[in-house]
Amino acid sequence: MCLNRQSSIPLYEQVVNYVKEKIRTGQWPVGSRLPAQRKLAEWLKVNRSTISTAFDELAAQGLVKSAHGKGTVVINNTWGLLTDRKPANWQQLIEAGHYKPNLAIIQKINAAEFYPGIIRMGTGELSPDLLPNRKTSELLKNLNLRSFSLGYCEPKGNRQLREEIARYVAGFGIQTAPSSILIVSGALQALQLISIGLLERGTTLLLEKPSYLYSVNVFQSSGMRFAGMPMDSEGMCVDKIEAYKKNTPHSMLYTIPNFHNPTGRLMSAARRKQLLAVSARARLPIIEDDVYRELWLGSPPPLPLKADDHAGNVLYLGSLSKALSPGLRIGWVIGPEPVIDRLADLKMQNDYGSSNLSQEIARAFLHTGAYATHTAHTRAQLKIRRDYLLERLDSLFADLAEWQVPTGGFYIWLKVIPDIHAAALFQEALKQNVLLNPGILYDRDAGQYLRLSYSYASFDQMDEALRTLRRIILEQSQRSF
Amino acid sequence: MCLNRQSSIPLYEQVVNYVKEKIRTGQWPVGSRLPAQRKLAEWLKVNRSTISTAFDELAAQGLVKSAHGKGTVVINNTWGLLTDRKPANWQQLIEAGHYKPNLAIIQKINAAEFYPGIIRMGTGELSPDLLPNRKTSELLKNLNLRSFSLGYCEPKGNRQLREEIARYVAGFGIQTAPSSILIVSGALQALQLISIGLLERGTTLLLEKPSYLYSVNVFQSSGMRFAGMPMDSEGMCVDKIEAYKKNTPHSMLYTIPNFHNPTGRLMSAARRKQLLAVSARARLPIIEDDVYRELWLGSPPPLPLKADDHAGNVLYLGSLSKALSPGLRIGWVIGPEPVIDRLADLKMQNDYGSSNLSQEIARAFLHTGAYATHTAHTRAQLKIRRDYLLERLDSLFADLAEWQVPTGGFYIWLKVIPDIHAAALFQEALKQNVLLNPGILYDRDAGQYLRLSYSYASFDQMDEALRTLRRIILEQSQRSF
Ligand SMILES: Cc1ncc(COP(=O)(O)O)c(C=O)c1O
Ligand SMILES: Cc1ncc(COP(=O)(O)O)c(C=O)c1O
Repeated sequence: MCLNRQSSIPLYEQVVNYVKEKIRTGQWPVGSRLPAQRKLAEWLKVNRSTISTAFDELAAQGLVKSAHGKGTVVINNTWGLLTDRKPANWQQLIEAGHYKPNLAIIQKINAAEFYPGIIRMGTGELSPDLLPNRKTSELLKNLNLRSFSLGYCEPKGNRQLREEIARYVAGFGIQTAPSSILIVSGALQALQLISIGLLERGTTLLLEKPSYLYSVNVFQSSGMRFAGMPMDSEGMCVDKIEAYKKNTPHSMLYTIPNFHNPTGRLMSAARRKQLLAVSARARLPIIEDDVYRELWLGSPPPLPLKADDHAGNVLYLGSLSKALSPGLRIGWVIGPEPVIDRLADLKMQNDYGSSNLSQEIARAFLHTGAYATHTAHTRAQLKIRRDYLLERLDSLFADLAEWQVPTGGFYIWLKVIPDIHAAALFQEALKQNVLLNPGILYDRDAGQYLRLSYSYASFDQMDEALRTLRRIILEQSQRSF
Repeated sequence: MCLNRQSSIPLYEQVVNYVKEKIRTGQWPVGSRLPAQRKLAEWLKVNRSTISTAFDELAAQGLVKSAHGKGTVVINNTWGLLTDRKPANWQQLIEAGHYKPNLAIIQKINAAEFYPGIIRMGTGELSPDLLPNRKTSELLKNLNLRSFSLGYCEPKGNRQLREEIARYVAGFGIQTAPSSILIVSGALQALQLISIGLLERGTTLLLEKPSYLYSVNVFQSSGMRFAGMPMDSEGMCVDKIEAYKKNTPHSMLYTIPNFHNPTGRLMSAARRKQLLAVSARARLPIIEDDVYRELWLGSPPPLPLKADDHAGNVLYLGSLSKALSPGLRIGWVIGPEPVIDRLADLKMQNDYGSSNLSQEIARAFLHTGAYATHTAHTRAQLKIRRDYLLERLDSLFADLAEWQVPTGGFYIWLKVIPDIHAAALFQEALKQNVLLNPGILYDRDAGQYLRLSYSYASFDQMDEALRTLRRIILEQSQRSF
């Protein structure tokens, strides 16, 4: 959005007109808050004082009102010809909706990731230069568009893609059939479908603490409770599970055995066996979130729980997001057929299936072997990136933090030694163009932690971000003396 | 799935092994029901008696048990080495999930649409030969994959696509900006996001009766109630709305003004004005579902409600599904910015955004003008199809049914004169390879109605289906004497 500096209309008046247009077209309805003056000034590339003059003018015309501490609110849209137009009370509706909003800091991160010039130091995705644009383009050119449908899809998703996935997961021991597979728009959607389709409000979910799941509201919004299990070097500790399950008979367990988000940890083969045994004894269903499987940097991880799940206790989640492309929005759920049927039915209620185009490209990646080639390439590149970040940490943070070497995935779970205030650190870093994922997103008690990612930022950016971070931590910890 | 007829292993034993494999791999866990013998026989292409022998054998081995009227259930998976493996109680979980399953008949339709040889006489989508496979392929070839991201997307969706949509809707009077637009995976997902994001459980939704909304469970699953308003030749009747709104202050109104699903009706310009006036007086928010806008067969429909919505009372839904391709799964919501922000936040909780590939192709269709070209073509073809179905109805159903001539969209709302039993008619037609959408899906009191569609089946199929339908109706109505 740019104002016209050559115009004979003063800038402040252009701002007035801009705001009026927003109000007139119902984009900023009565009762809504105007953006902060500072933000608007940035946006429209004018001085703060120009905005301030414009707001005064709007207030004088009776269109907006500033309330102390509450910002500026639209109170009227009845200038000119518009008279008897009363707006619906959207604010009330927004508050009435039964899903919780994302945590404010998550909302901030979701938006800030797209700020120009920002360094994304905590992001859970591959850097653009690791994404397979060229290969995708090639596969798209060779797509046989005659043979695939642009119509609505079967409830469980493209049949040929499900066949490819069945073949693919057989490679690490999961025996299944297309009818036991549901295609979803990423593993997150699988979690959402599980939350509405398999769980009563008030159900307890056992999970690792910390966990990715604390950072998304998908289960909390449906009224589930979390019971966090501690982790050790082999992954989730299993000793308290049976006791929990006895108290909350309808519980389910969620785990990320491979390259856990956010700790980067790998569950050992022995621990997997123990967990399956506990699950069998306690009849405890397991959600196995395996989205990082392909991203091993040393040797391949142990077989998934699902590979040894002869009782059918495990719902297995996979995704193309982490090793290929999140923008495709393709993932899968594998489980007992009646469960897959139920989830497929709910998927039809939510969005009538995932993009056929994405499904077709996913099929082509798997079918041609391009997926395997690409993941090998990704691993090699990630390894270099991990090693670089570790080296930079060694030289810049040896005195300030502790960490372990992840054997796969995207993350280093950094424990900062000086006392930090997570929100203040996040804010200050953002001001200096470094976007962080604070540990508290994944565990309320992890205030000293940061989830650093070596998957996204460039080498120079990683170096710069660590230097900035070091400076801020030192400043903020000195100030607190 | 095919058995090996050359093998020395008897067919029934191959069936036993097939079922055992399903049980062993947890696809058919303990407690789940086996497919009906008839269905399995069809599937594996063997006689019913072979299946029956196999089931007896499985029962003798203690793996399954037949309960009268309940089918055959897996009771054990502990042959061979497998011993202490107790399955989770998935059935209980499935029943505990707080979302309702789709109506049985909707589930049946969703599955039957993919039966080979079926004639889809009620389907709400374009025939495959009306879908733009060639143009899509061409646009895909010219995609500049360097310039677009395969990563996660901004919360509101691809910015350039939102700009294209803003330009596109300006063509019919909607003034908006990209920040007031949210990209969704089809209009159905918009409804789902509204149901979880803006409405309290127990909220009343005013809507046309009949309506598409009765056939999807998206609002019912979130505990909303429906208040159906009658329709006349100008669309939804508005006289009772204010009274309703007084009794249920938190209500919202849902309408399909253009080529209404299922009646095909068009809301007049005068009625639109009345509805907006009522909405302004009662401060009643409106969801305007405009997915059929482009499919006018005579002259373009009146401007949308949203075009005159200066109060910001209208949430506007559009989609590429009906006039271009449902498989892309691209739709949009336009509304007050705070509402769009709220829905975007929930979309991030549900699936982190829609397929980038689909968004990119949607952008290309709009940007290049290919969308306009294609919709003009679609209209011309649909008109021929509508006229054909009307002509066939005239000659085959003049004595059996009543209907009106739709001026756009996909549907003829057929009122059958002889008494019919909707479920029996549906079943018998399906047996004869004709898939129907009975009126009761859209209105419990519309037992005499069928939603016929001229968008999907071929000309020959339409003719054949109508002949079959006529025969069944005559038979079933005679039988009931
Ligand atoms: C553990 C885990 N599961 C699921 C997801 C969701 O991934 P997607 O929906 O893109 O497949 C993520 C992404 O951050 C993740 O870290
Ligand atoms: C009135 C109406 N709204 C919304 C939809 C959903 O369409 P989509 O989600 O494919 O955009 C349909 C499809 O049947 C419909 O008829």
